[in-house]
Amino acid sequence: MGQLQRWIYPAGLLCSVILNVVFVVLYVQMNSKWKPDWSKSAAKEAEAVAAVTCSGHGRAYSDGLVVDGSPVCECNTCFEGPDCSQFSPHCAADVESGDPLFLEPFWMQHAASSAVVIMGWHRMSYSYSDRSTISQELDKLIRKLHAHVGNANTTGRFIVFGAGSTQLLNAAVHALSPHNSSEPAKVVATIPYYPAYKSQTEFFDSVHFHFEGDASMYMNSSTSNTTSTFIEFVTSPNNPDGKLSKAVLRALMSKQYMIVPTTGLISLQFQLLQMTISCCLPFPSLLVMLEWALVKEKDVFEAMTTYMSRNTEGVSRDSQLRALKLLKVVMEGSGREIFEFSSKTMKDRWDQLNKTLSVSKHFSLQEITPQHCTFFQRVRTPSPAYAWLKCERREDKDCPAVIREAGIIGRNGTLYGSNSSYVRLSLIKTQDDFDVMLHHLNKLVTKEKQNVKNGINHTSSSYISL
Amino acid sequence: MGQLQRWIYPAGLLCSVILNVVFVVLYVQMNSKWKPDWSKSAAKEAEAVAAVTCSGHGRAYSDGLVVDGSPVCECNTCFEGPDCSQFSPHCAADVESGDPLFLEPFWMQHAASSAVVIMGWHRMSYSYSDRSTISQELDKLIRKLHAHVGNANTTGRFIVFGAGSTQLLNAAVHALSPHNSSEPAKVVATIPYYPAYKSQTEFFDSVHFHFEGDASMYMNSSTSNTTSTFIEFVTSPNNPDGKLSKAVLRALMSKQYMIVPTTGLISLQFQLLQMTISCCLPFPSLLVMLEWALVKEKDVFEAMTTYMSRNTEGVSRDSQLRALKLLKVVMEGSGREIFEFSSKTMKDRWDQLNKTLSVSKHFSLQEITPQHCTFFQRVRTPSPAYAWLKCERREDKDCPAVIREAGIIGRNGTLYGSNSSYVRLSLIKTQDDFDVMLHHLNKLVTKEKQNVKNGINHTSSSYISL
Repeated sequence: MGQLQRWIYPAGLLCSVILNVVFVVLYVQMNSKWKPDWSKSAAKEAEAVAAVTCSGHGRAYSDGLVVDGSPVCECNTCFEGPDCSQFSPHCAADVESGDPLFLEPFWMQHAASSAVVIMGWHRMSYSYSDRSTISQELDKLIRKLHAHVGNANTTGRFIVFGAGSTQLLNAAVHALSPHNSSEPAKVVATIPYYPAYKSQTEFFDSVHFHFEGDASMYMNSSTSNTTSTFIEFVTSPNNPDGKLSKAVLRALMSKQYMIVPTTGLISLQFQLLQMTISCCLPFPSLLVMLEWALVKEKDVFEAMTTYMSRNTEGVSRDSQLRALKLLKVVMEGSGREIFEFSSKTMKDRWDQLNKTLSVSKHFSLQEITPQHCTFFQRVRTPSPAYAWLKCERREDKDCPAVIREAGIIGRNGTLYGSNSSYVRLSLIKTQDDFDVMLHHLNKLVTKEKQNVKNGINHTSSSYISL
Repeated sequence: MGQLQRWIYPAGLLCSVILNVVFVVLYVQMNSKWKPDWSKSAAKEAEAVAAVTCSGHGRAYSDGLVVDGSPVCECNTCFEGPDCSQFSPHCAADVESGDPLFLEPFWMQHAASSAVVIMGWHRMSYSYSDRSTISQELDKLIRKLHAHVGNANTTGRFIVFGAGSTQLLNAAVHALSPHNSSEPAKVVATIPYYPAYKSQTEFFDSVHFHFEGDASMYMNSSTSNTTSTFIEFVTSPNNPDGKLSKAVLRALMSKQYMIVPTTGLISLQFQLLQMTISCCLPFPSLLVMLEWALVKEKDVFEAMTTYMSRNTEGVSRDSQLRALKLLKVVMEGSGREIFEFSSKTMKDRWDQLNKTLSVSKHFSLQEITPQHCTFFQRVRTPSPAYAWLKCERREDKDCPAVIREAGIIGRNGTLYGSNSSYVRLSLIKTQDDFDVMLHHLNKLVTKEKQNVKNGINHTSSSYISL
């Protein structure tokens, strides 16, 4: 016992000192770890917002409404409640707009690498240090991206940024129109075309260009009448129908948006390379905040750059910084992840939609042939961004109204220069938007099958009960 | 000695145990502190960039060049070297542009509150949840700011955002021009006017409006010819000369940019309320990435909103988020700090400039009378954004060339509809830009004094040796 008492203190002290040493090591380790200083408050705020999961049917934003100190959920269409958990089965699917929300989960999975901290004093000049309005680091990264994807050779090409394709499109039309001619350039596109071609060209009512509608109307005159300048919008894959379009006025082809001014000799070849839904780049807009154009001719590049400066002093510096960060994520690792994610998501949606409508005689989808994809080095089945739905029955002339009655909000074919037997359905919104649309389409087709079974072939006043 | 040995272990153990308890408390405390999760990498990256101080004569940016893993300094004009520490005394001061870089130190002092983390999935829609392209939180904050400053009553007014004043100005001209008239609206301004009024209106060459130059040319015709629509740009305080301008075509007055279309009856009163250098808001642009307009008429607001959507799908969501954050800082505490900072900085610069040029007979500055300021509730001495320098001597007709020779790059008066005996010098760039300009001006005036002393009164081929 005496022996034990003699050793109890030294042994206890030894253990305690060992523990001291462990604590010191831990403490030093913890203190040597990087801790945020001035960025802490912003980081904490953002993480608090991101922690609001909204049941997976919505999301909170840093600039959204705050109630009692908590960020409020912004729910997907047809979901309600403080945490977006309540589904409204009678609600209409809104698949009208081209918001590329299907990419949201991808960026959420890459929260760490895709976040960016903007300092209060970030880029307070109207220009970068080289006096341009274009971030040279972003320019370099975009060239790398094209080389990686293999969809464009950027050597000798100039890059112009726009705050979205709409700004770039008008800048291009402005730059390509002759400014010393009494006759405005004729802006044309093949039906069905992206509505902005018409609406924007007409809205900006310049003395130098005028929207003239369907390109095919000028197929003959374009060869005989060389005094007119034609600017043809070519979108390939086309919006809305996903077809690989070609310029009808000249046999020039691009995988992307292309504007070909045909004035006498072939003097200009202009490309607006915008990321599109295709086998290689399966999304309509890689970035929602910035688009770019690859321009061949220096004078067109300069004219477009002047347009951007006069219009908005170039693209927002904040968006350029964010774009730089997001494109770095795109190029991370093998640089295939976002393409595989997008491709898979869009292919799944397209397959499900096709399966649903394959049994219908009342509704049809556009046919898209599989293409060989350089990037994935294989032939890939279609995965378009939009469904170009046709109401096949004569009595369903107002197709948007027919599908609206079935609980689906699409975009009228007339906006695309086509007619109202067509509707464009957006497949690139959230999974919820797609699922609700499919749910309503399934009910529509089921009703059709039942009617066929019952021998009813007339137009039902309501396809489905909402 | 035996007594001491008997107590050494228990005492040691006690100390060690106490130390362990302290460590446990520290450990628990440290672990309970908030630590960044996914935002850590972005925060670390930004802090590393901000830590590059560039000797106070430059700054590194998150989207700037990176060499060997280190962000590269972007130096102020006339400073060089990897850390911007080398001053080039023979270098010309560049005070041409209106970059509001004088606010950089303010935002650096408020690094924590002005930083913002943008998540990868931030606002991937083309619209906010209310389907607009305007952040309602930002709209609300701007109204609060105006109420706080007391420079505008926003009740019943609509707010339109633009990616800078240039976009807003053209949107306003577009919205105010008649679209059903064969005659384009006449866009006018009083000389000297902000160059964009002319350059932008001419550049966007619409069929609906045309730049017609000096407003005073139409003072008579505007009263007799009521069939024409006039759109008058009024900037008050005016850019470049800081004068409190009034509309010459109609006696309507605003403290800010104002566009008054004068078509027959007084039907529209339109205000583009842009933050300007005045006693109350002593800066040209509070935010470099976003401007806003307060609009009285609903139809003008809708037309401007349509313009913004067609043009750029509204203002970048990233910029709106950042603007929200920065305006929150502006409103922090008493909400006076930024105004006091700006007011003091600009007043100091103006006083120094005046002192330097007060002894010169060759150069003069505009005269600005002190104004009563509602915000500060006192009469304040002038603190304009720009110096409107005049070369007084007949032989110095090309004033920009004269001061260029002296090592100062200003903007030619001809761009403002005036003549080349005037130059605009920007006072709102960095302290370095201002100091270098003042340094060269001092040399210029010293040379003038020496010449007077020596009885030389002819034009020197070079005012100062660079």
